[in-house]
Amino acid sequence: MADDIGDTLTALEAVVNDRLAAGDGTASYVASLAAKGRGKIAQKLGEEATETIIAALTEDDAALTGEAADLVFHLTVLLAERGLGWDAVAAELARRHGTSGHAEKAARPQ
Amino acid sequence: MADDIGDTLTALEAVVNDRLAAGDGTASYVASLAAKGRGKIAQKLGEEATETIIAALTEDDAALTGEAADLVFHLTVLLAERGLGWDAVAAELARRHGTSGHAEKAARPQ
Amino acid sequence: MADDIGDTLTALEAVVNDRLAAGDGTASYVASLAAKGRGKIAQKLGEEATETIIAALTEDDAALTGEAADLVFHLTVLLAERGLGWDAVAAELARRHGTSGHAEKAARPQ
Amino acid sequence: MADDIGDTLTALEAVVNDRLAAGDGTASYVASLAAKGRGKIAQKLGEEATETIIAALTEDDAALTGEAADLVFHLTVLLAERGLGWDAVAAELARRHGTSGHAEKAARPQ
Repeated sequence: MADDIGDTLTALEAVVNDRLAAGDGTASYVASLAAKGRGKIAQKLGEEATETIIAALTEDDAALTGEAADLVFHLTVLLAERGLGWDAVAAELARRHGTSGHAEKAARPQ
Repeated sequence: MADDIGDTLTALEAVVNDRLAAGDGTASYVASLAAKGRGKIAQKLGEEATETIIAALTEDDAALTGEAADLVFHLTVLLAERGLGWDAVAAELARRHGTSGHAEKAARPQ
Repeated sequence: MADDIGDTLTALEAVVNDRLAAGDGTASYVASLAAKGRGKIAQKLGEEATETIIAALTEDDAALTGEAADLVFHLTVLLAERGLGWDAVAAELARRHGTSGHAEKAARPQ
Repeated sequence: MADDIGDTLTALEAVVNDRLAAGDGTASYVASLAAKGRGKIAQKLGEEATETIIAALTEDDAALTGEAADLVFHLTVLLAERGLGWDAVAAELARRHGTSGHAEKAARPQ
């Protein structure tokens, strides 16, 4: 069975928030990136977006999936450092695209 | 209650796949973007990543959340056009960050 | 004979500075872009960089040259809006890469 | 006196073309970057564009000038690896913006 993106993002967000809270004394990548400032997290997001674009145009599925995962990871960190999370993004996606998880769930056959 | 990011992404991916399958005869944004080629989808991803960076550095929470939603939407389209989906990204995130939704779910108090 | 990049950039910079000084009452692209704020100029730079990347990987020479011209144009605007110009970039390039135009010019056979 | 952007870019382009021609056996940054493929050069362009955006929005003039220099340097490499150069970009800028170096030069007082 495939991994569930919702549970994975929720777990990832929790780990990122723990590491941001623990701060730079720790050895974590998230804490040391955040200690360099919001601009450095944004820079990493830009790098991963560029790598995703290049992978989409010139690389195989595994490479593209890996770059997409790195992009999503750094988006999680960028949001978390601003005190935001995936729930807010989900609400906005539902509002923009009419794809509320609630509506979809309600529409499933029982 | 907040929207669930997993259900939302799953619903979004289903809608995107439907619109890609329906093709360019339809009036959908996804179909018309895809009809312009993979490079145009990648271009939109780059634009939304840049807007997310600028919002993270200079705009408020609502603006950042909106740009993150647009970035995630176009990543969904870019992946879908290559035949890939959020399950593969979730599996890769779990592998890289040890944040498997399965493990996290198993660890929850019953 | 090919156009000279130095004279072209100098002329372009002068035009951009004139239009920034003239301000938003005018119909110029530069003035109306600048009136939307520095973030919008930065956003355009990001878009043109993405288009340059995609052209480098998937398009022909004319397309790549055109995207590079757009990127350089918006870099000129971004610098000018901050009160900076090509002289400062030239000095920094010379310092970093030892490619001073002065040294190069002095080394030419008389 | 300020460095001249035209002479600097011409000198930079000559150095980059020399290093591309010399190939990966040499220790040069340009040769080793090119040996990793066009995608890696494009990736660096994307990184430098992101850093330029962040510097324009949050950093001082020296930082922005430095990032602009890095962006221009990697654009020179990306063009050179495709066999293109600044003359072609100058011609395109002149065509798009009516800022021909030739016209400007002709208009100067003698």
